Amino acid sequence: MADRFFVEGFSKKNKEQKIDWLRQTYLKNKPEDIEILKKYWLPDKHLQSLHEGFAENTLSNFTLPFSIAPNFPINGKLYAVPMVTEESSVVAAAAKAAKFWFEHGGFRAEVKGKIKTGHIHFFYDGSPADLQKFLDDHKQEYAERLRPFTENMEKRGGGIRSVELENHSDKLPGYYTWTFRFDTADSMGANFINTILEEWSDYFEEDFAREYGLKPEVVLRILSNYNPECLVKVRAEAVISALKTGMSGEEYARRFVKALDIARVNPYRAVTHNKGIMNGIDAVVLATGNDFRAVEAGAHAYASRSGKYTSLSNAFIRDGKLIFEMEIPLALGTVGGVTRIHPMAKTALDILQNPDAEELMKIAAATGLAQNFSAVHSLITEGIQKGHMRMHLNNILLQMNVTDEERKKLSDYFRNKKVHVRAVKEKLEEWRKNRA
Amino acid sequence: MADRFFVEGFSKKNKEQKIDWLRQTYLKNKPEDIEILKKYWLPDKHLQSLHEGFAENTLSNFTLPFSIAPNFPINGKLYAVPMVTEESSVVAAAAKAAKFWFEHGGFRAEVKGKIKTGHIHFFYDGSPADLQKFLDDHKQEYAERLRPFTENMEKRGGGIRSVELENHSDKLPGYYTWTFRFDTADSMGANFINTILEEWSDYFEEDFAREYGLKPEVVLRILSNYNPECLVKVRAEAVISALKTGMSGEEYARRFVKALDIARVNPYRAVTHNKGIMNGIDAVVLATGNDFRAVEAGAHAYASRSGKYTSLSNAFIRDGKLIFEMEIPLALGTVGGVTRIHPMAKTALDILQNPDAEELMKIAAATGLAQNFSAVHSLITEGIQKGHMRMHLNNILLQMNVTDEERKKLSDYFRNKKVHVRAVKEKLEEWRKNRA
Repeated sequence: MADRFFVEGFSKKNKEQKIDWLRQTYLKNKPEDIEILKKYWLPDKHLQSLHEGFAENTLSNFTLPFSIAPNFPINGKLYAVPMVTEESSVVAAAAKAAKFWFEHGGFRAEVKGKIKTGHIHFFYDGSPADLQKFLDDHKQEYAERLRPFTENMEKRGGGIRSVELENHSDKLPGYYTWTFRFDTADSMGANFINTILEEWSDYFEEDFAREYGLKPEVVLRILSNYNPECLVKVRAEAVISALKTGMSGEEYARRFVKALDIARVNPYRAVTHNKGIMNGIDAVVLATGNDFRAVEAGAHAYASRSGKYTSLSNAFIRDGKLIFEMEIPLALGTVGGVTRIHPMAKTALDILQNPDAEELMKIAAATGLAQNFSAVHSLITEGIQKGHMRMHLNNILLQMNVTDEERKKLSDYFRNKKVHVRAVKEKLEEWRKNRA
Repeated sequence: MADRFFVEGFSKKNKEQKIDWLRQTYLKNKPEDIEILKKYWLPDKHLQSLHEGFAENTLSNFTLPFSIAPNFPINGKLYAVPMVTEESSVVAAAAKAAKFWFEHGGFRAEVKGKIKTGHIHFFYDGSPADLQKFLDDHKQEYAERLRPFTENMEKRGGGIRSVELENHSDKLPGYYTWTFRFDTADSMGANFINTILEEWSDYFEEDFAREYGLKPEVVLRILSNYNPECLVKVRAEAVISALKTGMSGEEYARRFVKALDIARVNPYRAVTHNKGIMNGIDAVVLATGNDFRAVEAGAHAYASRSGKYTSLSNAFIRDGKLIFEMEIPLALGTVGGVTRIHPMAKTALDILQNPDAEELMKIAAATGLAQNFSAVHSLITEGIQKGHMRMHLNNILLQMNVTDEERKKLSDYFRNKKVHVRAVKEKLEEWRKNRA
């Protein structure tokens, strides 16, 4: 597969050389793209070079809007929540929901657990009893040997919480795991966990072979992004008679609960319902330099834990109140990764008054529930499109090269009308023709 | 809950006023953060203002590295894949996997379907036969009435593909859906789908009430992010005897398949395994201005479709070959959303030679499988930490205020050693003391 697009040693080129290679290959007739790549460089060279260190083969920056949703009431404190999202209306929806629940006493959030998991996955065809005995014999000794790796974490209140043998040989012949539970304090803890697992596994392979004359085959040593014990619960309650929504409180609460019931029983709805929750959560995760792929994977797997994919949030009526709540696993950190080295992530954490990991879990969960509330609220009242239409019109206009005056006129004209590309084009053409 | 942090009319303030409010409240003692917010503004004011239009309450930009993984062989064509990720080693891993599979004939990808779904969720306590009759009577007429909304989409090859009644009253009393299948051509199609659903629903409510004297209660009208018929398949095959990995081809293939078997049977591993796939996919999704929350929700729900959360990819040995493949739902667009209005997303699409939606699905899927390959490869050979350690050291050094000379010395020193914060600190202090 010889090819003029094949390149040898790309990673060794410097940024200018990499861009130059693109200029000669994929962007041959696109000088404007070369300009764009450079236009997104930060004027501060030190900052720019910092960002180029985060990933490999970096040519430029991809920017996402950094926004604020103020008036977020969580456990009696008010937050301005930093959100990073490219999806229009998400921040506005969060801010609206925050204000709505502010009037009903705000969000209550609590962390139910902060345990993260990791596994040494191995195959072995001897007696499971020997494995268990090996663990009992070496547990303490290995904890000592690992001290150089755990000492710092222990000082911060974290460490290894348990090691257990799990027998999975019913699923695959001879498959076992050493299953670890960790507390990683305020860090995401990926490097900590993986280092412990690799060390422990090295000790295990060597010692077990010597003591039992049998070498287990270790295949994988890695943290899990499924952390059902790293869980936060968030709840909001409103007195139904006090609900102000344009319909009676009873009617609103009844419709709200029905919408949540649908998301519980129908996976096609549950996926989108949960996607709305993640719109809020990921925006906080991104803003604070956390890893949204990890959070997404854990949350959606949790949504499927019963054997049927279902909604993460729930609503019901009790004692004249509409109760709206969610439990979600969120393994977040406020140290480690890029949380402290991305200056905007550091600023986001400052805006949040430097929360610890538990506090950040609560903030992210409340933002997710708020986002979910806004989506359901729109859906059961005016429908989702009316709110989106202004945004949609905005996007259409951005592509149509309209003047400021035309933009204003079109926005006014379509305020209470259905927006679709053809209608906007026709209206614009009509005006331009009349003016010509 | 009166509070000095409460703010009225925040969205109506301009950007400077919003930042000023933060300066007086949450960032009172953090003038450096105010500086940071401004340092990330793009020097080109027109560009900056464009980005502020994407979301609400936008104060600045959050930057993620925009990188390139070259030499990506997909269906006989070579791509340089634009990737946006904050996670170090992801781009390097993709590039490495691309080169590895280049030597084995590359990735084969095919789109198995491009159908997206949407629903009108409603409650009704009459006869389901009446609903079915209503649909049969009005299907054609409604298609005509919707013409102004579907015309453009039909010109581009898309449109409504089917409408069906689904009876869910076994799950919730009186719960039904009008279930729509759409082809949205090269667009993500969210606005198109939601508009059709809301229109159709309006016709339905009015006409059904008139004809049958019974008003169904429509609760939700919305697209689904669960799109198991919007599916792409990607596959790579290597002749086992030709595998060059530092162990015999047979041994490598055997270990590789075992690692995939583990991810198939153990959800704790499957979640992390799939997270690795999404590291690659999301980086392409972000770079091209698509919505990663939608893609994540759909992919993980698909991973749980059997009733047990499992791996999205699979590997097996056949006819002397290691076969590695994946099927994943990816509802992507190359028009709509910010794909064409974010200049960096447009550049990313140019670098990919302006693929249509199907081509982009293939590219993203191949990048996901490549990422998965690199992760499994590291895990079954040297372990994941050795590769991460260089990155980890880099992050530690970024926080330690080291000189360039110290950075070089520490990097050399730790090249083949275990990296943990304490060890790096100790070494640095030792050198500094000796020098003093």
